[in-house]
This record gives sequence, structure tokens and C-alpha cells, in this order.
Amino acid sequence: MGKLTEEFLKKWEELGYYRRACTLLSWDMYTATPRGGHPGMADAMTFFGTKAFELSTSDAFYHLLKELKDSGEYDALSEGMRFTVRTMLRDLEKDRRIPKEFYRDYLALQSKSMRSWEEAKRSSDYSLFGPDLDGLIRMTKEKCGFTDPGKEPYNVLIDLYEEGMDTDTIDRVFAQLKEGLLPMLEQILAKPQPKSRIYEGTYDPDAQKKVQQLLLEYIGFSFENGTVGVSEHPFTTSFSPRDVRVTNHYYEHDPISSMFSAIHEGGHAIFDQNVDPALADTAAQECPYMGLHESQSRFFENILGRRKSFWVPVYPKIQELLPDLQDISLDEFVQEINHVQCTPIRTQADEVTYCLHIILRYEMEQEIFRGGAKVEDLPRLWNEKTKQYLHFVPENDAQGILQDMHWSDASFGYFPSYLLGSIYDGMFLDAMRADLGDIDSLLENGQIAVVRGWLNEKIHRFGALRLPGEVIKEVCGRPLDAEPLLRYFREKYL
Amino acid sequence: MGKLTEEFLKKWEELGYYRRACTLLSWDMYTATPRGGHPGMADAMTFFGTKAFELSTSDAFYHLLKELKDSGEYDALSEGMRFTVRTMLRDLEKDRRIPKEFYRDYLALQSKSMRSWEEAKRSSDYSLFGPDLDGLIRMTKEKCGFTDPGKEPYNVLIDLYEEGMDTDTIDRVFAQLKEGLLPMLEQILAKPQPKSRIYEGTYDPDAQKKVQQLLLEYIGFSFENGTVGVSEHPFTTSFSPRDVRVTNHYYEHDPISSMFSAIHEGGHAIFDQNVDPALADTAAQECPYMGLHESQSRFFENILGRRKSFWVPVYPKIQELLPDLQDISLDEFVQEINHVQCTPIRTQADEVTYCLHIILRYEMEQEIFRGGAKVEDLPRLWNEKTKQYLHFVPENDAQGILQDMHWSDASFGYFPSYLLGSIYDGMFLDAMRADLGDIDSLLENGQIAVVRGWLNEKIHRFGALRLPGEVIKEVCGRPLDAEPLLRYFREKYL
Repeated sequence: MGKLTEEFLKKWEELGYYRRACTLLSWDMYTATPRGGHPGMADAMTFFGTKAFELSTSDAFYHLLKELKDSGEYDALSEGMRFTVRTMLRDLEKDRRIPKEFYRDYLALQSKSMRSWEEAKRSSDYSLFGPDLDGLIRMTKEKCGFTDPGKEPYNVLIDLYEEGMDTDTIDRVFAQLKEGLLPMLEQILAKPQPKSRIYEGTYDPDAQKKVQQLLLEYIGFSFENGTVGVSEHPFTTSFSPRDVRVTNHYYEHDPISSMFSAIHEGGHAIFDQNVDPALADTAAQECPYMGLHESQSRFFENILGRRKSFWVPVYPKIQELLPDLQDISLDEFVQEINHVQCTPIRTQADEVTYCLHIILRYEMEQEIFRGGAKVEDLPRLWNEKTKQYLHFVPENDAQGILQDMHWSDASFGYFPSYLLGSIYDGMFLDAMRADLGDIDSLLENGQIAVVRGWLNEKIHRFGALRLPGEVIKEVCGRPLDAEPLLRYFREKYL
Repeated sequence: MGKLTEEFLKKWEELGYYRRACTLLSWDMYTATPRGGHPGMADAMTFFGTKAFELSTSDAFYHLLKELKDSGEYDALSEGMRFTVRTMLRDLEKDRRIPKEFYRDYLALQSKSMRSWEEAKRSSDYSLFGPDLDGLIRMTKEKCGFTDPGKEPYNVLIDLYEEGMDTDTIDRVFAQLKEGLLPMLEQILAKPQPKSRIYEGTYDPDAQKKVQQLLLEYIGFSFENGTVGVSEHPFTTSFSPRDVRVTNHYYEHDPISSMFSAIHEGGHAIFDQNVDPALADTAAQECPYMGLHESQSRFFENILGRRKSFWVPVYPKIQELLPDLQDISLDEFVQEINHVQCTPIRTQADEVTYCLHIILRYEMEQEIFRGGAKVEDLPRLWNEKTKQYLHFVPENDAQGILQDMHWSDASFGYFPSYLLGSIYDGMFLDAMRADLGDIDSLLENGQIAVVRGWLNEKIHRFGALRLPGEVIKEVCGRPLDAEPLLRYFREKYL
């Protein structure tokens, strides 16, 4: 091993331990830390986060990366390590252009605005958040100017969350989707609506936990390389392909929420667990492209999890665990989990209206970053668009523009990833059918492992190595297109 | 704040973060890490452990401590920080006399012998562990020679776990106890034995978890400053008085194990949670004297938890949670949890024979460190003593000399702490009765908070500030004596 490589691996390992400490502290704070222990854990997170930041942004580390990249040693590195050196260097080159004082102020404003957003949402008073949002938008544009001078800010932001994606492509597929979806929604809503008795039952949280265990095992989550926890909001976190964790939350009168969270987070986790072991402990061990990652959680949750065939092998077992489901037939259950309705909260939306929730947010971000909309006009704009796409006006801003936390920490450009995930899913489903034939008969016969194996083989094992555009090209052999998703909706709902 | 103080506090804080990372990694490995994730967590623990070791044993830190201790700034420190500086300096002065290579070899032998002990226990083959045990004994004596030259090694070891305690005192009270206990055990065993139907039932682990919750709340564990987890063996771990965690393990056909583990670990936790908040983040925030700590867990578990009056306010609620207890009366239950019998495993022993299990181990350690017994003769000696005190010969070494892990990592001198804890408890009970009157009527009336408040006030709040001997003197006003414990046993069992 060359001297530069050795030096780099030592630093990379050290950085890995600081990051692992931060991930573990965060996991623990959400799943285990008692209230009184939070300040102690938060201080430790700041300490290790600072350690990681100092190491990774130091001149010494930057010059080491540069030297290694330009040396003969680079080619002798593993594929995962080459990816690590290459992407770290690229990101550092951008980030080093951000003035230190600017960055410090930007982080400070983010902390401030996360608190003001919480307060604004709690009291449904947008004016408490507006001024900070205004600052965040201004500083985010400025930051894009530092990292990617000459590039359009909103495109810089999109690229952060879905590398290689741009607004031209998103404009095209979102417009295509919107045009198809709006009339389709009218038709769906005109049909008779199912009336479910599910929410009249009582479902023991411990039993729901057993259902989660059953569903995770069913879809192929590895408990050898994964575990589960309980938190306020479900999430997935990974230390390596050998240690991937999902959380859930159980509501006594809603068994569906925890079931679909289990499947959704399980989909994220199955991606992380099935990355090629050769990429472990490199920056390629986890897919950082949010749309692609979301496509996998949503494939399990929606494309598979909302089909009747998915439930055929497991529903009777679930009925045993949750007695109040025993007089709800599989057909009634499947009707309920595919109940399309216009509701205010994105995270609780069905798979059809969910798309419109995202299109709305994407259009809002366009207004902000390209149209120059004023911060004080945003709630009105939000409500107009809600009226237009979902046929109601939010009761208040807490149920409208303040519902998501994404803007409060300047995650502008993140929202489109969710919908890109669904659009990819439409295309993946076509490609999967071409390879495996009828998905429903596979599922009905308990052969979900075949479906999962296809996703592992085509998508998961590459981790971060393939960009979303490359995956689409390799797997589907055609450019990005919303038509397969529209067709999937049409066939299912009309 | 003086310059030395500032410099010290910065280092102390950094050390605290490394130690916190180690504690959290360990907690996570026992309660959450999936099997595949263990190597990654273990490597991180080595990294942060090394960081802590390097910092705390560095010349710079030693000289800083020395300078601070001798400066005018020392007196301006808080009581907890003075304790921190004083004890760290004392320990460093001892530990710095251990040659680095020796220490490295000692740690390496400990890792090796922990594995060989596991293997030996699994296959019940003492010969797999004997040679490593021999090396550990030799090196431990040598280590004592480095840290405390001229002092008798076994006294050095005892002092590690119960500061201020020595073999003269232990010899005296253990002899007193043995003399009283051996004939008492004959008398107890001659009485008719209870026959319990408890172990014929089935007890849902989720319901046992609810029982644990109920018991912890009942005895006064704070969920604001504490949480619970599940692990193979129950334990307590503390980050600070604001974050104290207990674990448990649930056996489907034994509800008593998890109930008493909850009370025992809850007792440890209540100690840690009730240390004076002014001592938080100092070395005095947790009591490092094992006998004194164990006295608190055992006070809750035995002195309180094995009285009928303790169960009067909670047993009906527990019967609701565990239906198979419903036709077991409170009297039958209390008989079962006070069933004295000679059984092979220390950790499963009743409160009376437990004392003999410890006396046996103490005498074994005396033979090893003072009598020069040969390692190959230890199993024979162990079995002879078991026969003599408990009237049976262990079936094999796994049920005999190999049952405890303590010797495998060289924790010689730890065992006596357990029994010292019980002896303290006899004395604490006398002192408590003198202050509070009849304990049973307090418990029966649901006033366990009064009992806990007394322990908080007399013992817990001082954390590490008072040595066990000082606590005994302050609380009981008399020297250490086993008679109160013997009297407690006599009154209860004869």
C-alpha cells in the first residue's frame, strides 16, 4: 500500500468513527434517550460533528486527497475508495469556496429557523417563520453562488439531492404527470368511495410490533444485519450494510400507519442492506440520491404493498395478531389502503394525490427561486394551488404551508425527489414485468424474494456508484418518462 | 476562571465525550446492534477507548492535574471538581508506575482469557481456561506491585472495588456471618418447603415488560431521567444523573426473574438518578464503590422486594397483567420469592444461600492470593467448599468454578462487594427503622416514597463523595457488623 493511500485510509477511518458516533447519538436520541439526557447527547453530537467537520475540511486533508487523486496510487484503490476520493474532492472543492463566516452564519440561521418554524407550526402563525425563511432563501441562493458560480441556484439545489437531475427534465415529467393526473383524479373521486370500519377497532401496540416483525421478515429485511426501534416519526438509519435500522410508531386506533411505515422504511433498509459488501466502509456503501432511495421505499410501500396479491400470503397471519381485523375481509382491507381522497397532509396522502402534493411544492420552490415570489405571498400562493389541485383550502397554515419541516433547515430542492422516486417506480415496474412476468402471481405464491432479488441485482448492489440517470438507462433502457406511472394509476384506479 | 482550571475543564470535557461514546457504544451493542453490526461498533469502541486512554494518561494531562492541584485555583473548584482532580491524580500516580508494555500484555491476556473462559464454560472444560487464569493471577499480583508497592496484593484489589475496605475487616464480618449462617441454613432447610405452581404458567414477555414498567414506577425510577432496554443479562448504565438506563430479560415461564431484575437494576438506577445535580459531569456523579452500590440494588431487591408488605399495593395490578398469576395468592407468591434452597448458580440464589456463594468465592480468592493455591487445584477446592457450605457437589465445572465471568477479566477482589452490600443493608435497615418506624406499615400503605427518600437523603445524594466506611459511620453510627443482617434472616426465616 502506498504512503498516500495509507495516510488517507487512516484519516478516512478516523472520520468514519466521528460520523458513526454522530449517527449513533442521533439514533439513540430518537429511540432511547430519556428527556433529561437529551442535552448531554446533543452536546456530544456537536463535539463529534465538529471533529468530523474540522478533519474533513482541513487543508491537510484536502491536499492529501488532491495528491492521492493525481498519484499513481489512485488507480490501485478499490472502486469504492476511488469513488470516495473523487466525490470528497469534488465536494470539498465546492465547499471550500464558501467563506467560513458565511457558513457559520448560515448554520446559525438554520438552527434559528428550525425553532421559529416549530413555533410557527404549533401556533399556526406563518409570520413567526416568514422573516427567517426570507433569510434562508437569500443565503441559500448566495451559497449556490459560492459553490457553483454561474449555475442556476435551483438547479444546484436539485443536484444536491438527486445528482445529475435538472429542472428541464423535472419540468417535463412533472408537467406530463400533472396533465394526466388532474382529470384522472376527477374520475376517481366520482366513483363510489369505500367505507372502512378499520378505524373503529383497537390495535395493541405490542401486537402491531409483532405485525411489523412479520412484514419486515416477509419483504426480506435482514435481522442479522438490521434492527428495529420506536420513535415519534418513522425513519431508517444505516451504519453499514451490516447494520441498518428502521423505526416505527404505533397508533392504537390505526393499524395501517405502522404497517405501511414498516414496509416503507423496510424498503429503504433493504436497499442499504443489499449494497455490494465490497463497498462497505466507503462513501459508496449507501445511495445518497434521494429520489432513487425513495423509489425503493415507495416500490415496496406502493407498487407492491398496495396490491392485493402482496397481502394474500400474510393477511391471515396479521388477522391472528390483530383480532379487530378478523371481521375485515382482505378485499375491504385492500380497498381501504387504496382509498384515494384529497387530504391536507402530504405524509398521510394516498399514492395518487401524493403526486399533486409534491408538484405543488415543486412549483412553490420554482416561484421562490426562479419567479422571485415574495415570502409574504407564499401562503396565499400555497392555498391557491391547493384549491386548484386538491379542491380545498387548508384550514390554516399549520395544515398548509407550515406542515413540512424541509424549508426550515433550507432543504430546498429536496421535495421533487419524492415524486421522482414514484416516476422511477412506474418505469421499474415495466422493466420488472418484462423480466419476471406477472408480479401478482409471484406475490400470491409467496415468491416476493424473486421481486426483491431483481431489485437487489438491478439497483441495490451498486450503492452510490450509479447515478439515478444511469440506473434508469441501464434498467429501463429509455429516458425518464412519467407515462408508466400514469398507466399504473389508470389500470389500478379506473 | 483561572487558566489552569479552564485548560483542565476543556480536557475533562473532551475526555467525557470519548467516555460517553464508549458507554453509548456498549449500551447499543448490548441492547440494539444487530449481529452483523457488532464488529463496526467494537472497532469504534476501541478507537474512542484509545482516545480516552491517551488523553487521560498523557504526561501533559498529568502535569496539568498536578499543577492545578497545587495551585490556588484548586480551592475555587466545586466540590465535585475537586474530587475529580484529586482522585484522577491519585489514580494516575499509581497507574503511571505500570510499564506500558506490561499493561499492553495484561490487556491482551484479558481479551484472550475472556474468550478461553467462554469456551471453557461452554464445554465445561476447566483446562481450557486454567493456563490463562494462571497468567492473569501472576500478572495481577505483578500489577499490584507496580501500583501499590509494599502493600499486600489482595488488599490492593479489594480497595479497587470498595475503597477503604481491607481484608481484616472483611475477614471479621464474613467469619461472623458464616458462623451464624451455617447452622441457620440447617434449621431453615429442616422446615417444610413451599411448593409453587408459578413456573407452570406462561407469561407473555410483552406483559412482563409492562410489569417491569409498573414496578419501576412503583419504586420511584424516573422515566424523565431514565429508560429501559432489553439485553441477554440485565444491567444498569449511567451517562449522568439525568440519563440512567436499566435492561431486563424476559423468560416465558418465569415471571419472577424479570420482576426481581427490574427491582434490582431499578435500585442501582435510583442511586444514580438521585445524586446531587451539583455533582453532574464530575467524577463524583456516580458511586464507584461496588459494595455500596450493590447495597442499594439489594436493599430494593431483598430488604424491600421480598417482604409481603412491598407487594400489597402492586400484586393485584400485576395479576391483571399476568393472567396465569391470578390463581396464585399473594401469600403463595411471597413464599415462592423467599424459598431458600441450595442451588448451584450464584445469580439465581435466594438471599440466604447467596451469602455462602460469596463467602466461598472470597475464600477461594484468599487461597489464590494469600495461600498460594495452584490453579489446577482450584476446581477441587471449589467443589469441596460447595459441599461443605451448600451440601452438594457441582455437576460439572460449568455449574461450579466456571460459572462467573469475573476472573476471566481479572476482576479479582470484586466478589466480596456483593456480600458487603448485604451486610450494609442489615445495618441500613436498623437505622431506617430507628428513623421511620415500622417499614411494613409504610409499604403496605403505599408510602414507599418515604423509604426511598430516606435512602436518597442518607446515601444517594453524595454520589462518590463519601466512602463506604464514612457512609456506614454517618448513617448507622457504629462500625461494620454482620449481626443486623443475621438478625434480619433469623426474624424472617426462623
